[in-house]
Amino acid sequence: MRESLQLEPLTAASFAAFGEVLEARPDSARTINDGLTLRHGPLAHLRLDDAGSGVVHLYCSAAVSLPFRLRRLERHLHASQAFLPLHRRPFPVVVAAASDHPRPSDLRAFLTDGRQGVCLAPGVWHHHQLSIGEPGEYWVVESRANARFTEFHELPGELWLTG
Amino acid sequence: MRESLQLEPLTAASFAAFGEVLEARPDSARTINDGLTLRHGPLAHLRLDDAGSGVVHLYCSAAVSLPFRLRRLERHLHASQAFLPLHRRPFPVVVAAASDHPRPSDLRAFLTDGRQGVCLAPGVWHHHQLSIGEPGEYWVVESRANARFTEFHELPGELWLTG
Repeated sequence: MRESLQLEPLTAASFAAFGEVLEARPDSARTINDGLTLRHGPLAHLRLDDAGSGVVHLYCSAAVSLPFRLRRLERHLHASQAFLPLHRRPFPVVVAAASDHPRPSDLRAFLTDGRQGVCLAPGVWHHHQLSIGEPGEYWVVESRANARFTEFHELPGELWLTG
Repeated sequence: MRESLQLEPLTAASFAAFGEVLEARPDSARTINDGLTLRHGPLAHLRLDDAGSGVVHLYCSAAVSLPFRLRRLERHLHASQAFLPLHRRPFPVVVAAASDHPRPSDLRAFLTDGRQGVCLAPGVWHHHQLSIGEPGEYWVVESRANARFTEFHELPGELWLTG
């Protein structure tokens, strides 16, 4: 059976069960640096490892097109993972709330507005990062131990991400 | 007396005493996500707080022009601070190695190549973030306690950053 998962707009409220949306809001700003900088935030609260350390990677991702078949979810126990885009284009964020056995009906697919970043809460199931239509680049902040505490879940059936 | 501090190119080697340079290098890449993503890193190793948490801000900075007078340095004890640019233009990074009393002669000024980010090591003196010529945007990763553990140092005399 072929099922489809449709993209919906990403908002802080709709994403609250999965993590934080990093976006500038009028009420999030404070002026610092002798009046030269408008600082928004904190926009995300990272949970990294117990030693208080984390790492930053740069992800350079090839483009995929929709519909795109979703085959597998992953999650990182204990630690957050933040995706901070360098580009200015919408990208999809496919997630399912933390549970031992995510079902296809638990999945949600959000599309950023082209400015937003996301910070996945520890243990939240997600599809690996995808860029639609054009390649994308992202700074990714995570625990150094994420690779060791990663679990995978193969999706049953045939599930396609659609626009 | 009017002194000048001249910008020099930012390289991992020249910046080693102050922190890490985040840049894609041919030897830093690994393919992940079913072949779709080239992951570079870890490019920076963050030291955040003892509870293993950190925050992400978005800095939107007005442009300044050179020469620019440098009046004050700051440093964040115990924790790193990473500047991950969203834009694709060079920006200056003014630093002095960790010491109780930085002298103007201790200062170095680096100019990124338009792609690089930087991660300042804990305790490294630095001028607040500057964007030259055009406004700049940066994701900034730091400890939640950075504001509490920040020290300032007023620079004596008249020191100008020059191109």
